[in-house]
Amino acid sequence: MLSTMQDVPLTVSRILTHGSTVHGGSEVITWTGEGEPQRRSFAEVGRRAARLAHALRDLGAAEGSVIGTLMWNNAEHLEAYLAIPSMGSVLHTLNLRLPPEQLAWIVNHAEDRTVIINGSLIPLLAPLLSQLPTLEHIVVAGPGDRSVLEGARARVHDYEELIAGRPESFDWPEIDEREAAALCYTSGTTGDPKGVLYSHRSLYLHSLQVNTAEAFALGSGDIALPVVPMFHVNAWGLPHAAFMAGASLLMPDRFLQPVPLAEMIETVRPTIGAAVPTIWQGLLAELDARPRDVASLHTVVIGGSACPPVLMRGFQERHGVRVVHAWGMTETSPLGTVSHPPAGVDEEAEWTYRATQGRFPASVEARLIGPDGERLPWDGAAAGELEIRGPWIAGAYYGGAHGETLRPEDKFSPDGWLRTGDVGTITPDGYLMLTDRAKDVIKSGGEWISSVELEGHLMAHPDVVEAAVVAVPDEKWGERPLATVVLAEGVSTGYAELKAFLGERIARWQLPERWTVIPSVPKTSVGKFDKKVLRRQYADGELDVTRLD
Amino acid sequence: MLSTMQDVPLTVSRILTHGSTVHGGSEVITWTGEGEPQRRSFAEVGRRAARLAHALRDLGAAEGSVIGTLMWNNAEHLEAYLAIPSMGSVLHTLNLRLPPEQLAWIVNHAEDRTVIINGSLIPLLAPLLSQLPTLEHIVVAGPGDRSVLEGARARVHDYEELIAGRPESFDWPEIDEREAAALCYTSGTTGDPKGVLYSHRSLYLHSLQVNTAEAFALGSGDIALPVVPMFHVNAWGLPHAAFMAGASLLMPDRFLQPVPLAEMIETVRPTIGAAVPTIWQGLLAELDARPRDVASLHTVVIGGSACPPVLMRGFQERHGVRVVHAWGMTETSPLGTVSHPPAGVDEEAEWTYRATQGRFPASVEARLIGPDGERLPWDGAAAGELEIRGPWIAGAYYGGAHGETLRPEDKFSPDGWLRTGDVGTITPDGYLMLTDRAKDVIKSGGEWISSVELEGHLMAHPDVVEAAVVAVPDEKWGERPLATVVLAEGVSTGYAELKAFLGERIARWQLPERWTVIPSVPKTSVGKFDKKVLRRQYADGELDVTRLD
Repeated sequence: MLSTMQDVPLTVSRILTHGSTVHGGSEVITWTGEGEPQRRSFAEVGRRAARLAHALRDLGAAEGSVIGTLMWNNAEHLEAYLAIPSMGSVLHTLNLRLPPEQLAWIVNHAEDRTVIINGSLIPLLAPLLSQLPTLEHIVVAGPGDRSVLEGARARVHDYEELIAGRPESFDWPEIDEREAAALCYTSGTTGDPKGVLYSHRSLYLHSLQVNTAEAFALGSGDIALPVVPMFHVNAWGLPHAAFMAGASLLMPDRFLQPVPLAEMIETVRPTIGAAVPTIWQGLLAELDARPRDVASLHTVVIGGSACPPVLMRGFQERHGVRVVHAWGMTETSPLGTVSHPPAGVDEEAEWTYRATQGRFPASVEARLIGPDGERLPWDGAAAGELEIRGPWIAGAYYGGAHGETLRPEDKFSPDGWLRTGDVGTITPDGYLMLTDRAKDVIKSGGEWISSVELEGHLMAHPDVVEAAVVAVPDEKWGERPLATVVLAEGVSTGYAELKAFLGERIARWQLPERWTVIPSVPKTSVGKFDKKVLRRQYADGELDVTRLD
Repeated sequence: MLSTMQDVPLTVSRILTHGSTVHGGSEVITWTGEGEPQRRSFAEVGRRAARLAHALRDLGAAEGSVIGTLMWNNAEHLEAYLAIPSMGSVLHTLNLRLPPEQLAWIVNHAEDRTVIINGSLIPLLAPLLSQLPTLEHIVVAGPGDRSVLEGARARVHDYEELIAGRPESFDWPEIDEREAAALCYTSGTTGDPKGVLYSHRSLYLHSLQVNTAEAFALGSGDIALPVVPMFHVNAWGLPHAAFMAGASLLMPDRFLQPVPLAEMIETVRPTIGAAVPTIWQGLLAELDARPRDVASLHTVVIGGSACPPVLMRGFQERHGVRVVHAWGMTETSPLGTVSHPPAGVDEEAEWTYRATQGRFPASVEARLIGPDGERLPWDGAAAGELEIRGPWIAGAYYGGAHGETLRPEDKFSPDGWLRTGDVGTITPDGYLMLTDRAKDVIKSGGEWISSVELEGHLMAHPDVVEAAVVAVPDEKWGERPLATVVLAEGVSTGYAELKAFLGERIARWQLPERWTVIPSVPKTSVGKFDKKVLRRQYADGELDVTRLD
């Protein structure tokens, strides 16, 4: 029996219209690096978004057109964020940290015909222009040397001139909520980048969730500081969620270094911020060296990778800022879990809970899958790969040669759940504790051995500088761990001693038989252990391995 | 272009499964009036809901079957709330305050074949049994004299016996989110009651909204006290929202009097409560007379009718409890507006904002329509009828002779918006201030005159005990106000003086020309002014009217 409720779609245009009317007095405050920050009311953002939509339509944008942005976090980027999906086109956020050839690949794959770019980023785009045949329009916002764009096949427009004098309202189309609204590519370490195509529905539901008390609880009294870039998974949902709740936004633009961050926090007094650990680590060091009043920040959300406990404690104990751990990925919009400890636990337990990735919201269904495909219990002990399902979780990629849907089987289960590639445990009360990437765990006789855990124990030995543990093939067990260690200068600790040291800390069956000393652990371009290289070196017989059975 | 996100429906079963796993340790605490309250974990509620679903299926419930509940707020009612929609049937909450003939009409109209009833409410149902031909099963929960049900055509079951020994999990069907989940009839003053048929989608989205910071911000550390009955618009969404957020629930059962309410608040220490003004008024008087520690309650939500400022201030100033005004109706699930004042306003302005009905959330679109159908500005001055639209707003009624969809034109605009029947203004920053019911405003020459405003001013005159202002036909202006006043004993104040008194307070064109003194204002069964009677008496020439032009 169908209900009698109104059938109203959940769309980005609703967020835009709501924020710019009911919360028209809230502000987008963009840091300029000098003098007063730029302040623009939500009402003004709404009018400018309408003007932008008229302009983009005149440049040929239609429903379903993909429009790129290569921009910092600022008011113009927010206008594009809201206008492009609202007019039925698709916002494609381009990651300005990508290697040039990947950036070009992505623009071509998405067939961006228009790109809105900050003037300061022209040097990134200009050298690629000859490789971007689909690009017809470049819209430049803010200062920057435009001379290098002269002679480009694409037409170059000034953002302000383009939107000047256009109507301040737009008759936003009523879009099916399952239509695409935004596109973000994952920078996969293997294979071509793959696009995640968010829908109006997924962005809307995600925004509602972000604003709940179990997540970040944005309200109209808040000022949110998304340090996490808007090209990185929707800046974790903050721009949409803030506009929905009427929370003002402090946009750092390109000023992501510790000193300007500290200055903008002290000056504008945001209440909640979000960034990866590296950023907060730098800010903490700056604040410790030159204290400032940052106590307006009641919450700092950390995600992207696990947050060192010392960082959480440092912010809280020395600066009165509460750090909240969250987990997600491009494929999850990104809100997967948020770590608020349960009410009423003691301080020690609270810190234990806060070190976890946290709890799933109702819209994210989770299961742990063991090495043999079996479903594992939530007992805080059984480790499995995390699979999730929900209305803001990707069910496929926009990734084939002509943009067709891709469902690689290592990324999606046969019943459609996302295989996150993360391995961990879930406690009986629903807290996720991630320990490994699936590709880094060792599958030994139907059990998983955590390489991260072994590495942690090894690196606790006073003579060990670095340690990387990788899976190597084993006739009897399928896979076994190979321990590669970098010793401190001048020591010559034996393998037997290291193995005995490990043996006091982990189960016997997890102890590596294969050991090798290497001069340094190979690293990826972002400084992570590159275990692919170690596995290849082992396979090619390049490592001098000692066996201790 | 369709997105690549997963297509996962928003269903009540997701709320049930999530709450009973991730938040399995949260509790439903039902007040028993003596000794310890009954405590049941969400995990246990989940298992019992599964057992109930198996039992109901054995009694013949299928997808689309309507199952009634005639119950207080307690754990068993919550089990029914979650199990019935999750299994694909429709939860029909029966209002135990309705006159018996309306109750029977509603059970018959909805074709309830099973009703779950609290033992203490058997005396309400028993006399109606002969009028309920569709009823096949009566499931009795809790103590009560069941002997009066003997001889009923319907089979009588004990709730606990019925669910005992059944499987503790249920393979909840994956339901289209637009399917009906719950049914609640409005007790319209005119015509037959009309059903509002909530969908899974509307309940789910509403729950998300309730849990946002801009609404009630329930989190897993909260204990919610829904004093508002679960048969009254889903207890304003608290049961579903609390189960979704992992907030524990304190259920008052039938103990709705000031003394037990004060006692349960002091004992169980809920953090947020919701009820109509009358309940809070009684509680405030009790607390003023016999103070108790109720400071655990950080928020008290008041809705159902406008809240007297003296009540809001009394709770806050004398007992440390913040009262939050909210507005909604059966047709709006009910969250229409919530009144959180803007950040940073001074105390006086804050109280002004808190006296309004509040702001709309993003999912509730609003417009004000003037007497001639024109759309009015949000300027805090232009008064019009409020029309709203959104995914948890009714678009029709379940109301015809055979349950077909009804869309009376006085309730729905041609483009599908709900006509709320409420008249008021909206400020530029989106705060709704209701002044009248549409049927009580006077439409005079294309402008509206507020009867409530005139009555307020008249009753401020020292000689006036009561005053009711109604619209009466006028050849020149269409309608004009008729002032009916009840004078204090022993006074004989003249109409000219009253009119002059009014003239100092309102615009000249709003001043009534027609005046009459009556011995008392006719009242409805719930004590409200019955203006229908006055209009009829005027039309029939029963009132002695003096004209002062």
